[in-house]
Amino acid sequence: MLAEGIARVRRPSHFHLDTLLPTVGWIKNAWHPSEEQLLSYSGLDAVVFMRIIIFSFKVFTIAGFIAIFILLPVNCSGNQLQNVDFINITNNTLDVFSISNVNNGSSSLWIHLGAVYFVTIAVCYLLFSEYKYISSKRIDYFCSSKPQPHQFTILVSNIPVSKDSNVGNSVENFFTQNHTATYLSHVVVHRKSKVWTVANAVKKVFRKIFSSKKKTTQQLLHDSLLDGSKVHEKKDKSREEVRAAFVSFKSRYGAAIALHMLQSNNPTQWRTEQAPEPQDVYWPFFSSTFMRRWISRLVVIVSCAFLTIIFLIPVFVVQGLTNLEQLENYFPSLKSILTMSIVSQVITGYLPNLILQMSLKIVPPAMKLLSSQQGYICNSDIERSACHKVIWFTVWNVFFANVLSASAFNLLFILLEFKDIPSKLAVYVPAQASFFIAYVVTSGWTSTSSELFRVIPFIGSLIAKPFTRNSNDVTVPSFPYHKDIPKILFFGLLGFTYFFLAPLIIPFLLVYLALAYIIYRNQFFYVYAPKYESGGKFWPIVHDSTIFSIVLMQFVAFGIFKLKKLPYATTVTIPLPVFTLLFNEYCRKRFLPIFKAYSTEALRKKDREDQNLPEMPRFLRHVSTAYQDPALVPLSYSSNHDNLREPLLVPVAEI
Amino acid sequence: MLAEGIARVRRPSHFHLDTLLPTVGWIKNAWHPSEEQLLSYSGLDAVVFMRIIIFSFKVFTIAGFIAIFILLPVNCSGNQLQNVDFINITNNTLDVFSISNVNNGSSSLWIHLGAVYFVTIAVCYLLFSEYKYISSKRIDYFCSSKPQPHQFTILVSNIPVSKDSNVGNSVENFFTQNHTATYLSHVVVHRKSKVWTVANAVKKVFRKIFSSKKKTTQQLLHDSLLDGSKVHEKKDKSREEVRAAFVSFKSRYGAAIALHMLQSNNPTQWRTEQAPEPQDVYWPFFSSTFMRRWISRLVVIVSCAFLTIIFLIPVFVVQGLTNLEQLENYFPSLKSILTMSIVSQVITGYLPNLILQMSLKIVPPAMKLLSSQQGYICNSDIERSACHKVIWFTVWNVFFANVLSASAFNLLFILLEFKDIPSKLAVYVPAQASFFIAYVVTSGWTSTSSELFRVIPFIGSLIAKPFTRNSNDVTVPSFPYHKDIPKILFFGLLGFTYFFLAPLIIPFLLVYLALAYIIYRNQFFYVYAPKYESGGKFWPIVHDSTIFSIVLMQFVAFGIFKLKKLPYATTVTIPLPVFTLLFNEYCRKRFLPIFKAYSTEALRKKDREDQNLPEMPRFLRHVSTAYQDPALVPLSYSSNHDNLREPLLVPVAEI
Repeated sequence: MLAEGIARVRRPSHFHLDTLLPTVGWIKNAWHPSEEQLLSYSGLDAVVFMRIIIFSFKVFTIAGFIAIFILLPVNCSGNQLQNVDFINITNNTLDVFSISNVNNGSSSLWIHLGAVYFVTIAVCYLLFSEYKYISSKRIDYFCSSKPQPHQFTILVSNIPVSKDSNVGNSVENFFTQNHTATYLSHVVVHRKSKVWTVANAVKKVFRKIFSSKKKTTQQLLHDSLLDGSKVHEKKDKSREEVRAAFVSFKSRYGAAIALHMLQSNNPTQWRTEQAPEPQDVYWPFFSSTFMRRWISRLVVIVSCAFLTIIFLIPVFVVQGLTNLEQLENYFPSLKSILTMSIVSQVITGYLPNLILQMSLKIVPPAMKLLSSQQGYICNSDIERSACHKVIWFTVWNVFFANVLSASAFNLLFILLEFKDIPSKLAVYVPAQASFFIAYVVTSGWTSTSSELFRVIPFIGSLIAKPFTRNSNDVTVPSFPYHKDIPKILFFGLLGFTYFFLAPLIIPFLLVYLALAYIIYRNQFFYVYAPKYESGGKFWPIVHDSTIFSIVLMQFVAFGIFKLKKLPYATTVTIPLPVFTLLFNEYCRKRFLPIFKAYSTEALRKKDREDQNLPEMPRFLRHVSTAYQDPALVPLSYSSNHDNLREPLLVPVAEI
Repeated sequence: MLAEGIARVRRPSHFHLDTLLPTVGWIKNAWHPSEEQLLSYSGLDAVVFMRIIIFSFKVFTIAGFIAIFILLPVNCSGNQLQNVDFINITNNTLDVFSISNVNNGSSSLWIHLGAVYFVTIAVCYLLFSEYKYISSKRIDYFCSSKPQPHQFTILVSNIPVSKDSNVGNSVENFFTQNHTATYLSHVVVHRKSKVWTVANAVKKVFRKIFSSKKKTTQQLLHDSLLDGSKVHEKKDKSREEVRAAFVSFKSRYGAAIALHMLQSNNPTQWRTEQAPEPQDVYWPFFSSTFMRRWISRLVVIVSCAFLTIIFLIPVFVVQGLTNLEQLENYFPSLKSILTMSIVSQVITGYLPNLILQMSLKIVPPAMKLLSSQQGYICNSDIERSACHKVIWFTVWNVFFANVLSASAFNLLFILLEFKDIPSKLAVYVPAQASFFIAYVVTSGWTSTSSELFRVIPFIGSLIAKPFTRNSNDVTVPSFPYHKDIPKILFFGLLGFTYFFLAPLIIPFLLVYLALAYIIYRNQFFYVYAPKYESGGKFWPIVHDSTIFSIVLMQFVAFGIFKLKKLPYATTVTIPLPVFTLLFNEYCRKRFLPIFKAYSTEALRKKDREDQNLPEMPRFLRHVSTAYQDPALVPLSYSSNHDNLREPLLVPVAEI
């Protein structure tokens, strides 16, 4: 298996020619891996991610079937647009296939209403069964997991310290008094002083030296270690205690109790959070007070809103390009060039999307940067939060702003006049259908190519493996929520919105999804190394976004039926969003708690099973040291080079 | 003390003439009881309630000072209304004192802006200190409380039962397995079958016989007890198990853990709630499934919305009456009568308010009825929920609908056009000032008189005490949230809205609040018997409503400055609601958790203190039986008549 191959890549191993030879079984497995195999190689996150693609594919297969075989013929049979001169209008030819072509007040619009009802019910059913399946998988995954340090540990922050004490004593007192039976140990978090940065730089130099030289340079290593420990001693004196600590417990249940119960009479003190996996900890941000963390959160929200607003500028540029006449007004000298058919097609069709795609490339890293300042203490939370931000950013900017925009202020007033939104959407959305078809095609192409670019260096190094001295340098791409999930969800949004307005968009989406499936699942998915495991915690984001998309689709339907002068159908649409939101509320009650916390039942069961394990005492000793400040780690890292694969030490290389 | 007197009233005691004689100390104490005394007599709820009145009084003393000594002179010095003919317009004379009289664009409007800023800051400061004080009182009250059954017990519902088991076994297995160290006992809840109703009726007859006859009728009692036990046996066979149970624990902390942790892998099963005090349990509603409870909740929300909408009818009638001309159009024959000055004053000034007051009398019981169907399992929760409903009902119907209404559909469209609301409010609110002054005066009067009516029977029976055979018949009025708190909060809302628009309303409010203070605190408050103790849990409702009122005031200010053509002041108003909502958010983080749950710190401290109490084993035995199904109680009730004061048995008489 390639996944095992990667594990081997990390270990210093001797050269064997046979590792280079592909076998038939290998190819077969890579093409058709079962869900169990995927689970064991890449963890639950990968499985859930694949299920998101399959879920979208299922949904749009159903929607596509109705769209192509029922709605498209109905739309074509209308004659609302017959008075349009087809020779002059090149861009709007596709409108014949859209709902715009159906006659006003025509009873065939009821077919569209039926389609909206059918798709809503089908999607809700699929969502429900998927939520049920994933939450059961999540529980199973937990139940079959080996004891891991983060299951036994919580992060406590805002620890109150009396004048004649320190953070360590304060934690010791509080937990021995209030969690007598379960408290195990604690590690106080230290603020990285400037010395830390220096030490870290030195550490990197060591690593370079260490990996480029052979084992014969042990003496040199020894000398540098001595230097390292000196740096460490110096740092040890100067580093500052932060009022936060990782507190470990003897059982998972003990940790969960301390996590979920209000600890202090002052709710801003002794705040508890689930500890991340040791390699997932985001060390740079341990804000010391509740207020500071709260304020930085606010600042991030404001910056995020600001970024969203200034991003309207490229959106307007794109808008300007799609209206060629406006461009001709601004630059009369270009008129002769712009009238050339190929130039106008490139400018109105692909250029706007390319500009949008390029600008959108900046968004995910920007959102990740903002999220990292928001006070999260682990990379997975930062990514999840960034994922959320990117989704809402994309929905707002690419969809709403693009569809509704005239100017930023007009847009604001349109949104304040709530009752007008459905009609406005109903007018503008079909008009933009061809633009979005181009968008889907362009994105499909750019995302495929960018995936390729990301993986090429790895393949190269894999081929060159036997000839390079040090294969540790291979950077294995890791699975990023904040780029991939928003993209799929946004295409889902597009699909739902255009489903009955412009059915032609659905086949393009299906092609995109199939492409994504192939890219992520087969020669490529195995290349990803999971940096951390969230246990599929991002599924609720997918669920919520899907619900949002369906409700938006229903809103647009409401507006369209009003415009098309079918008042009774407008009334019949009203129960749909009510039903959908109630369904969402039920899912939140039924499944969401599983993604927030594991149950007493599951925790106690695991704890009881563990009691009989002979390795538990050794594991608990390991737990006590797993959350050491990374500033303390170089010594053990450098001296136990053979233990590189021990999970505890992986992060040092990556942070 | 009178409160002790009441306690004595409940005990069968011999007649002593000295209990009738008032002493000087008694009167002094009744006039100036300290907060500690109030706490020990009537519990924390009474203290918090008194603090709400004092808080409102403080706020409106500050606001009143600014309104009367700064804003009123500024308003009077304007001459915007000088072209109004004072002889013809009688009702609008008060407008000279309102902001309508200030000239457009006048720089004296900046004084109004300053006043809004000042009052916002003052109210936020008072709110913060009050929240802090009440939350610390809540913790103190808990720390000084004696062990009580509801602190050791939770209610578990939606218990899954396998085919070859029953609810009792299922509970026993689950809790011995998952809460081994802390689980004490359980009582399965039974659905009251028709037999229960019969048994209850019989019980009441017993009680009547029992209380009217002397102790010489022991033989009769014995006979009826035999009958009673027969009924009981019959019932024992026929009563149905509900999939819910009261589960008791050996420590408060044990109960809290089971309460706050997710119990099952299926979050809709093994749902836990805090057990109410035994006498507070609302037995009629133990819905068996999660879905049923959830649906009944939805139905209640819909009914509540429906009630709110149909209540627009009396509001429109009232609106019609205030527009006399309209009335003259509908009934031309009445014209001669309506032109009489006294008749028109009565009809436009007091009649509308009386009609509104009368209609509003129906609302609190109706809301309580709805809340009781919502799935709450204790009376205090039902009352708190009813309180919430009545507030929003009052705000919506009496304030918004009255101020903005023309017709129900117009109102809906006004609310949908979000950006117009401030301007609309700014136009209509000042115009309604005189109406609301009349409203405050009328309500002040009616509430005073209704309080009097409620208390008179009690005073009568107290005087007649030595001459009646059985003093158990005295009905002590109990403190109802759902009527009194919404009233005070609504007057608060009025005060904030009119504070700078029509400053004249504030003195009326102050008089009303002073009246309320005197009524509730002195000859009357001691008469209330707390039915249950929520530990001041309703304070957050007060906090939220106050924040809502301030933000509404700021909205109106925004609209007024726009109308009065002072655009810069309009801009300067915008940061105010942002600041207020941020402040609210901070308070929610800082204080709200204290009202949801007690902290580990507090619970463990109490548990440690209890360990040394010699009476704990006896108390824990008592806990196991405290939540017996009331259908089981008649036997013990009838045979231990002298133990009437034991809390466990009080509810039987009251339910």
